[in-house]
Amino acid sequence: MRRLFFLLLLLFPCSLFAEDGSQLWLRYTPVDKHIAQQRTISLQAKDQTMQLAKQELESYWRGSSISLRLDKKIKKLRDGYQIKGDGTGVEVVAAEPAGLLYAAYHLLRLQETGADIEHLDIEEIPDYDIRILNHWDNLDRTVERGYAGYSLWKWDELPKQLSPRYEQYARANASIGINATVLNNVNASPQILTADYLEKVKALADAFRKYGIKVYLSANFSSPKVLDGLSDSDPLRKEVQAWWVAKVKEIYTHIPDFGGFLVKANSEGQPGPQDYGRTHADGANMLADALKPYGGVVMWRAFVYNPTEEDRAKQAYQEFVPLDGKFRDNVIIQIKNGPIDFQPREPFTPLFGAMEKTPQMVEFQITQEYLGFSNHLVYLAPLFKETLDAETYSQGPNSSVARITDSSLGNHQKTAISAVANIGEDTNWTGHHFAQANWYAFGRLAWNHQLSSEQIAEEWIYQTFTDEPNFVQPVRQLMMDSREAVVDYMMPLGLHHIFAFDHHYGPEPWGDRKGGRPDWMPWYYHNADTVGIGFDRTKSGSDAVSQYHEPLRTLYGDIKSCPENLLLWFHHVPWGHTMKNGRTLWDELCFRYDRGVQDVREFQKTWDRLEQYIDAQRFTEVQSKLKIQAKDAVWWKDACLLYFQAFSNMPIPYELERPIHELETLKKIKLDMKHHN
Amino acid sequence: MRRLFFLLLLLFPCSLFAEDGSQLWLRYTPVDKHIAQQRTISLQAKDQTMQLAKQELESYWRGSSISLRLDKKIKKLRDGYQIKGDGTGVEVVAAEPAGLLYAAYHLLRLQETGADIEHLDIEEIPDYDIRILNHWDNLDRTVERGYAGYSLWKWDELPKQLSPRYEQYARANASIGINATVLNNVNASPQILTADYLEKVKALADAFRKYGIKVYLSANFSSPKVLDGLSDSDPLRKEVQAWWVAKVKEIYTHIPDFGGFLVKANSEGQPGPQDYGRTHADGANMLADALKPYGGVVMWRAFVYNPTEEDRAKQAYQEFVPLDGKFRDNVIIQIKNGPIDFQPREPFTPLFGAMEKTPQMVEFQITQEYLGFSNHLVYLAPLFKETLDAETYSQGPNSSVARITDSSLGNHQKTAISAVANIGEDTNWTGHHFAQANWYAFGRLAWNHQLSSEQIAEEWIYQTFTDEPNFVQPVRQLMMDSREAVVDYMMPLGLHHIFAFDHHYGPEPWGDRKGGRPDWMPWYYHNADTVGIGFDRTKSGSDAVSQYHEPLRTLYGDIKSCPENLLLWFHHVPWGHTMKNGRTLWDELCFRYDRGVQDVREFQKTWDRLEQYIDAQRFTEVQSKLKIQAKDAVWWKDACLLYFQAFSNMPIPYELERPIHELETLKKIKLDMKHHN
Repeated sequence: MRRLFFLLLLLFPCSLFAEDGSQLWLRYTPVDKHIAQQRTISLQAKDQTMQLAKQELESYWRGSSISLRLDKKIKKLRDGYQIKGDGTGVEVVAAEPAGLLYAAYHLLRLQETGADIEHLDIEEIPDYDIRILNHWDNLDRTVERGYAGYSLWKWDELPKQLSPRYEQYARANASIGINATVLNNVNASPQILTADYLEKVKALADAFRKYGIKVYLSANFSSPKVLDGLSDSDPLRKEVQAWWVAKVKEIYTHIPDFGGFLVKANSEGQPGPQDYGRTHADGANMLADALKPYGGVVMWRAFVYNPTEEDRAKQAYQEFVPLDGKFRDNVIIQIKNGPIDFQPREPFTPLFGAMEKTPQMVEFQITQEYLGFSNHLVYLAPLFKETLDAETYSQGPNSSVARITDSSLGNHQKTAISAVANIGEDTNWTGHHFAQANWYAFGRLAWNHQLSSEQIAEEWIYQTFTDEPNFVQPVRQLMMDSREAVVDYMMPLGLHHIFAFDHHYGPEPWGDRKGGRPDWMPWYYHNADTVGIGFDRTKSGSDAVSQYHEPLRTLYGDIKSCPENLLLWFHHVPWGHTMKNGRTLWDELCFRYDRGVQDVREFQKTWDRLEQYIDAQRFTEVQSKLKIQAKDAVWWKDACLLYFQAFSNMPIPYELERPIHELETLKKIKLDMKHHN
Repeated sequence: MRRLFFLLLLLFPCSLFAEDGSQLWLRYTPVDKHIAQQRTISLQAKDQTMQLAKQELESYWRGSSISLRLDKKIKKLRDGYQIKGDGTGVEVVAAEPAGLLYAAYHLLRLQETGADIEHLDIEEIPDYDIRILNHWDNLDRTVERGYAGYSLWKWDELPKQLSPRYEQYARANASIGINATVLNNVNASPQILTADYLEKVKALADAFRKYGIKVYLSANFSSPKVLDGLSDSDPLRKEVQAWWVAKVKEIYTHIPDFGGFLVKANSEGQPGPQDYGRTHADGANMLADALKPYGGVVMWRAFVYNPTEEDRAKQAYQEFVPLDGKFRDNVIIQIKNGPIDFQPREPFTPLFGAMEKTPQMVEFQITQEYLGFSNHLVYLAPLFKETLDAETYSQGPNSSVARITDSSLGNHQKTAISAVANIGEDTNWTGHHFAQANWYAFGRLAWNHQLSSEQIAEEWIYQTFTDEPNFVQPVRQLMMDSREAVVDYMMPLGLHHIFAFDHHYGPEPWGDRKGGRPDWMPWYYHNADTVGIGFDRTKSGSDAVSQYHEPLRTLYGDIKSCPENLLLWFHHVPWGHTMKNGRTLWDELCFRYDRGVQDVREFQKTWDRLEQYIDAQRFTEVQSKLKIQAKDAVWWKDACLLYFQAFSNMPIPYELERPIHELETLKKIKLDMKHHN
């Protein structure tokens, strides 16, 4: 039996690796000698990144011969590339070494997705300069909002021991054009800037470098005080400024291509310049000045809100718009896609396009803090694109968030796009096999925000699973439907933030904590009462609509024209309000929740039909996750409908599947979950 | 506000009692003085039962005057009655006092169900002499297989203190013709026969007497030895016989109308005559001889099985048929409806009709040991009638179980029918409001087994809830569908006894206990393997089919003719076997389980639509139970299909809703439930 197994292994060398998801979308089959001898991969350079490009092609490329060439003069390419193929050979040219590496992965992607790999005329220029992952990894290896195991970074072992996963991580990122990473949590420990940790950071930076990945760090604004006993960390104090200058110098001594700092300041208890009566600009500029000589940047987060009477959705705008023009040119304001916090659906943050003189970047969240953790299958490209494609009208039509941030509409030094990673030390990296697609999709959109969600899904499926059309087509559809499903069963029609306290996994529309911040309470957001439900952000309410440019201000502000998928975001709507399809608001709410449940059940059916096409392990693991999702969808539906029904006082339409839970029982569910794993 | 409420109370005197189910189906509204003065209820007798009949009519009758008359000569009526009404008055005649009481309840039932109560020509003669409930109540007030709270009998308080529920219990029974009750568990404590307890029993008998209810006791066969230190309890020993003679005399001194003994002997560890090498007949006859002078009877249970190689389904037949003709004429063999143990569906026990010279009675189980306890809505009249109407062919066609046991086909001294009660001290008596219907249905069928399940359901709904047709019709349909639903989601196609060990609540087809009796293990019954599933009881298997008369032997024995709802009871059937509808066995099994789930979901929809017609309390309580049932149905379906799928190795048809549970997780469920509450 053992011998037979060994023979089988010999017969199928391509299935030597375990189908555990550890390979991600990088499942290239090594070419045999015969193929390798038939074509050459030529390159005149010793640069390690370029050599890596060559090596990847040597190992896996099945097409004709390739010549790789660096031409620093074609600056317009930035770190992009040109590929030309006439059927007899392929020419690749790039202005930077990483460009050649990205081109190599482009060619391999074409090969793996069954495209023509001989006749090629490609020019790819990335939309953003900095395509960066934010890891919310703590130094104790817990990961805030991480659902895929502990942190990849084994700080205890570093710098001496290097896990093989560091290079695998860098390769995966490079394969989709990600070129930067913030290693540590925005709720940053000052310790990351100590000499000891900088040695460790250097080791990671060294491991990533040939893949074109630059390392960034989240900086704790109080570091001078905490680490070296300065009396405070006031950004206008010379001593503090000198501390940062010295610290930055120390960092660049270790890591000459260090990217810069990400800072969460004066938000959710983090220290910041306002502690000393200074502005966000004062704080950001101090760091920017220290980094400037080395080409480093500061990504300063706009995610700030305080427990005031003001609508939380308005605060980032209110704090940052007055500072427009006051930031150094190597500061980028990093803005969450929506004005609250990575909800299943939000309108775009009105701060986008509201600071003409200041570079802005989007912060997405790949990790599914508010989307079922790594239990729910939710393909996020449609969510990412919804923000990127959103028309802000800041400079009239054609002022999408994408065009504002990719600098089509400005002339900023550097452009960037970021997302909070969903990566941990789980064998399959992301907990859910399909969560890999969200990492993938972010990278692809960061490179080219014009790609369609469908195309990204399809190429990911091809590479990750199989090219069998009977598998690709239904799975692509499932992925495309998955985001609307989660909106439906969690928070349809513009509802938001009715999650269970702190861990944000299940529903808790009834949530309340004595003495807690109102803007941490679900009732703050849903405002359900006997009249209706929803947050009045029109002029009669918080007037958050006024932060949007016309015609959005009017569009959102009028209950008649407001898109129904944002209705309860902007309006407090009577239960009996007639929706476009003729249903009352209450009935429509019920139908949406139910549709979400039914959709997940359909996902299960779709998936189960596909068992024959893929390996047993991933099939079963995804099947199990879908079971959880199906149960959770019913939990969400029952919890929200039974809770809101006490206000609407209307029956759940009788044609819909009935609740199976008791509201009082659901209220007692207290999951033993933390902020971090 | 308070005052308004008080005024409302005055306006609606009929809703003065709480709608908590405590009234059962006895929700008569007292007549006002005006009505009472317009008609008379005349009776010439001081007998307390007859006086009670008069009193019930005085209180609640809204029709014309009634004359109640006892005529002992009309013996054919037994404890039945005749009612004649010509529009100006009603004449009731009976041969026994209880007959007048039953007639009174008959009239009130007509009144409450909206029937004509003036023009009457009724003759009712009960089908069985003894219509008896078996309480499996222990002396510590736990109830074996009881799901409605502790025992009604407060032994500690007896005989001095009498709970008002004793009379309410007797009245409810009388209202449906039940005239006997066994107070204690068949797994009997010898203590029940001590002088102390007999005082308590006497108090209950006294409370029940005017309602026509006779008391019986379960007797522990070892009582002589345990209570009075006899060296053994050998039924052929004079000393033992004398002990019983004395004990019976003692009982009758207290309770002159004592009914007799129910005995579970040599079964599941209970003592019995076989302990001394004697037969069941030896044991039963000893007790029968002691009871004979007083008119008492012995109900001797045929539920015996031992851990042998023999098919458990065959054992009662094998042990009892050879004893036919050897029992005294005041012994009745009490036989469970099916050969195993109160399963959702069983064929009738072949012992029925197999002992021509011996009176037989059916034992049903009203308490839902194998039917979801008091959580699942399962209307049992269709199950009861399935057995009663079953053709045994013991004396050719027209030899139904009903006709065998009601003595149409014999000439036995006394006929009887029994059922294990589902009654406890819960406010609503039976845990589930709809479980009241099963108590009701048993009583009605014990009186007249020709009644249809629909009719019984309808009259119960009228009396228990409302006469609103929009309520009655759908609820009747729901009840009628409920038994097939539970069969579908628990054990379709003849599957049986794949319940969790001991408590029998959830599914455990994988159940196994090292060293445990095979016939307590689910695998003993389902026999699932890679070939197929089911218990081969044909000639090639245990040959249990041969215990049935022709044509059943052939019908059941041939896979082609065997009714599909008993297929896996009698056959080990290949997974690919083609069912009548063209599906494979495996697919059909999946469809049945799924149909059960969908049916319960439909019950929920039906129920929720009816909220407007009844009181909030009962509406909500039933709604909650249906939620549990819906969840449990999915649990059952997933557990059984996922477990059996490991043998069938076939996919669950993809159009069906997918499992939401993991088999391994379900296997870990260990409910903290006992045999008794």
